[in-house]
Amino acid sequence: MPIRVTVYGENLHEQKDAIVQAHYPNGMHTTIADALNRDPQIKASTVTLQEPEHGLTEQKLAETDVLFWWGHMGHEQVQDAVVERITQAVWRGMGAVFLHSAHFSKPFKRLMGTPCNLKWRNIAGTGDRERIWVTSRNHPIAAGLPEYFEQEADEMYGEPFGVPEPLETVFISWFSGGEVFRSGLTYKRGAGNVFYFRPGDQEYPTYHNAHIQQVLINAAKWAHNPAARLSAEVALNAPCCNELIPEARFAAGKAAAK
Amino acid sequence: MPIRVTVYGENLHEQKDAIVQAHYPNGMHTTIADALNRDPQIKASTVTLQEPEHGLTEQKLAETDVLFWWGHMGHEQVQDAVVERITQAVWRGMGAVFLHSAHFSKPFKRLMGTPCNLKWRNIAGTGDRERIWVTSRNHPIAAGLPEYFEQEADEMYGEPFGVPEPLETVFISWFSGGEVFRSGLTYKRGAGNVFYFRPGDQEYPTYHNAHIQQVLINAAKWAHNPAARLSAEVALNAPCCNELIPEARFAAGKAAAK
Amino acid sequence: MPIRVTVYGENLHEQKDAIVQAHYPNGMHTTIADALNRDPQIKASTVTLQEPEHGLTEQKLAETDVLFWWGHMGHEQVQDAVVERITQAVWRGMGAVFLHSAHFSKPFKRLMGTPCNLKWRNIAGTGDRERIWVTSRNHPIAAGLPEYFEQEADEMYGEPFGVPEPLETVFISWFSGGEVFRSGLTYKRGAGNVFYFRPGDQEYPTYHNAHIQQVLINAAKWAHNPAARLSAEVALNAPCCNELIPEARFAAGKAAAK
Amino acid sequence: MPIRVTVYGENLHEQKDAIVQAHYPNGMHTTIADALNRDPQIKASTVTLQEPEHGLTEQKLAETDVLFWWGHMGHEQVQDAVVERITQAVWRGMGAVFLHSAHFSKPFKRLMGTPCNLKWRNIAGTGDRERIWVTSRNHPIAAGLPEYFEQEADEMYGEPFGVPEPLETVFISWFSGGEVFRSGLTYKRGAGNVFYFRPGDQEYPTYHNAHIQQVLINAAKWAHNPAARLSAEVALNAPCCNELIPEARFAAGKAAAK
Repeated sequence: MPIRVTVYGENLHEQKDAIVQAHYPNGMHTTIADALNRDPQIKASTVTLQEPEHGLTEQKLAETDVLFWWGHMGHEQVQDAVVERITQAVWRGMGAVFLHSAHFSKPFKRLMGTPCNLKWRNIAGTGDRERIWVTSRNHPIAAGLPEYFEQEADEMYGEPFGVPEPLETVFISWFSGGEVFRSGLTYKRGAGNVFYFRPGDQEYPTYHNAHIQQVLINAAKWAHNPAARLSAEVALNAPCCNELIPEARFAAGKAAAK
Repeated sequence: MPIRVTVYGENLHEQKDAIVQAHYPNGMHTTIADALNRDPQIKASTVTLQEPEHGLTEQKLAETDVLFWWGHMGHEQVQDAVVERITQAVWRGMGAVFLHSAHFSKPFKRLMGTPCNLKWRNIAGTGDRERIWVTSRNHPIAAGLPEYFEQEADEMYGEPFGVPEPLETVFISWFSGGEVFRSGLTYKRGAGNVFYFRPGDQEYPTYHNAHIQQVLINAAKWAHNPAARLSAEVALNAPCCNELIPEARFAAGKAAAK
Repeated sequence: MPIRVTVYGENLHEQKDAIVQAHYPNGMHTTIADALNRDPQIKASTVTLQEPEHGLTEQKLAETDVLFWWGHMGHEQVQDAVVERITQAVWRGMGAVFLHSAHFSKPFKRLMGTPCNLKWRNIAGTGDRERIWVTSRNHPIAAGLPEYFEQEADEMYGEPFGVPEPLETVFISWFSGGEVFRSGLTYKRGAGNVFYFRPGDQEYPTYHNAHIQQVLINAAKWAHNPAARLSAEVALNAPCCNELIPEARFAAGKAAAK
Repeated sequence: MPIRVTVYGENLHEQKDAIVQAHYPNGMHTTIADALNRDPQIKASTVTLQEPEHGLTEQKLAETDVLFWWGHMGHEQVQDAVVERITQAVWRGMGAVFLHSAHFSKPFKRLMGTPCNLKWRNIAGTGDRERIWVTSRNHPIAAGLPEYFEQEADEMYGEPFGVPEPLETVFISWFSGGEVFRSGLTYKRGAGNVFYFRPGDQEYPTYHNAHIQQVLINAAKWAHNPAARLSAEVALNAPCCNELIPEARFAAGKAAAK
């Protein structure tokens, strides 16, 4: 059974910015999903901010192995109830991949517990050259990549990046203007795998880059937890186990063993 | 200048439970603050849930180096605006120590980004025997402690504990009923040091235990970040640095060097 | 293609201890390999201390995806050249699973960089009851396991365990005598995944336990890195890249972009 | 009592390279120790490769709170017995700070358990411009520093850096030639704090830079563990605790509690 990916796109820049429309005539989410669908092990669909509940109903999340998130100017429009639903789905085992300006999205900030702030610089149409170095050799998210790859231009993101120390630092970016950024970071939140991946300002054709697409595919596979989703009961609650049977049993067990 | 500690106590069990009153006639927060004040490097004061803004005004937090938190049945009564204020203070450099049932407090959950759930068992007046092992030798939070110390009885907390992997695991507890628990865990959130310490159900005289008191003192010192508190601007914002001067400068610098 | 596992057994206790022979008539390594071979995705073979180069030639390691290690009284007999070969194979991408008293084996200590010491207690034929708790829900190494499982008796290992803080703590053991131990710990060393798993003193039938066998299978799959083994050149060397072409190129690139 | 720092310098380049002599007429180790001694809380002395046991006798290490290490072409001349002595001192609580090419020193590699390899580029007298970003705001090792600081020129070190994921990433460097490097990394090994700090090729006046000197002072304070040095017995051994008293006691305790 393929990995079921849902790509959330806020789909706002696409409605009014000609540059974005030129790069992504069917929306950024569609380009991202198309890239993922090129891998036969992945089946990606899309949802957008404009749909009821942003398309992220309980049922949709139950059928999502990995959620990809691209958002920017519409962060505040995302309903808190949906954010909570996403957060709990991650805790129960759903994977999540946050792209570029999703560093400031509600679900990412909710999962990190930190400010998630950073530096940035963007001059429309110019940007910085970005060189993305693999810092963890043979990490599954870096499969098939050279030791570094580049984008001619993208918005710059710079350190310090206000996130918790990750499980592993997979990529660090070099920018021509003099900044660095931890561009690929892995986390575990409850039973869910979380990956942050930096590139992808809307003004640039980032998601058409073959290496970037490779990372998206790798990230979907890495974030996928094949175990059955934990019940909300198990994942969230603090069960009382109000009996002394275990200790009695141990005392008895030890007595018998002597 | 001494480390300024503020101890938050929700002060609810103390109002109606004779056992708690017997252990803590002036409230749990007072016993905790008194224990901290025995160290000349610490100056601890208290606030309670019942005060306006729970006593945790902007000014009070600005004058707090480390916040200690004990809460349980009143978690939901803590105002969200105060939780956000605390969270941002931690990100800006305030230390935070969460005690026992504060694992489910709003600020701890907010800072962790995880469910923070666990197992528990409590039979009034009986509890489990707890043996607390030091797992990180010579960690500053374990200063002056033997390799393990015990409580005759306390509420049991059991794994899995739904928190992120810590920077360091300082204590793990053994319970007579057959459970284990990571009882001392360190985190960094923004510029703030965070420590979770398990013992201390209200029904037991935990905070009178000399070893427990030593941990409280050690934790205050460890969590204290002597650096000046970051401004909200720096700690939370994502500054635009919309000029190309740096790169121009580097290009020029390299040209000159040749 | 199946995951190629090589199980190293030092095969010494088996030669002279009737209890061990009773539990493991064909040697502990054979029981471990048999357990692994029950999974169709794994193909496990064995080597022993007594073979030339302990059976771990360059060629054998090149054909090994994951190395399992059980050793105890023969640690010092393992040749340093073979230890170095194993270490480098891990750095180049081979997985490694260290079992029980392998905490003091040369390759484990070499990979950790720490003393790897612990407490222990063993009374022949009695041991402690051990309850092994899963501390990371839905971790792939815990797939198919209940929230805890037990051994009637095994040697006790106790904290503090002198290892680096792991990537993730997967299991913590409770012992009837009052100790705790981090029984399942994951690490990354170079491109190789490393897992330590505590149970398995030779005096007990540990490796016949179905839950233990499940962990072995899960660990083999988790430790397997499907990427091509890194060359020694790439994995170990510090390459000089003694040209200025990159920077010239960046300067040129920026100039052109303006 | 001041923090007692010992600075090890291999003192080889200084004997034959005029550029190094010009930058460091009394040796690199002397400049480093002088910088540390500017802080009244620190008392730094020096030792060199050429002394018997490289000056690092048991007694000297016993009187050393934090060991600084600069080595390069003489790595192989360092005696293995001294390396083992240093390693054990770290495990017992001595701090250690490894500078620049000490990434390939015997004690650093021993403590990391990884290849510790990296990329490098050095054109005599030119080097790369390096911009060092603070990635962990208000970390004690970054006290008093601006958000980034620069060196006009130093040897380039580039990722991937073959080290374990650190406790915290404190600095990341940007190089004008297009590379990035995790320049400040913290570790714990046994009871000892370990810090790696990148800058400092012998051909450049790096250790005269005021910001670099600030890092050295901060690192000495951070790495210093004020707890009494652990005995070798405690730090390295695996003590047998071959009695059942604890469990009997617990069984009795529980019975009495009912």
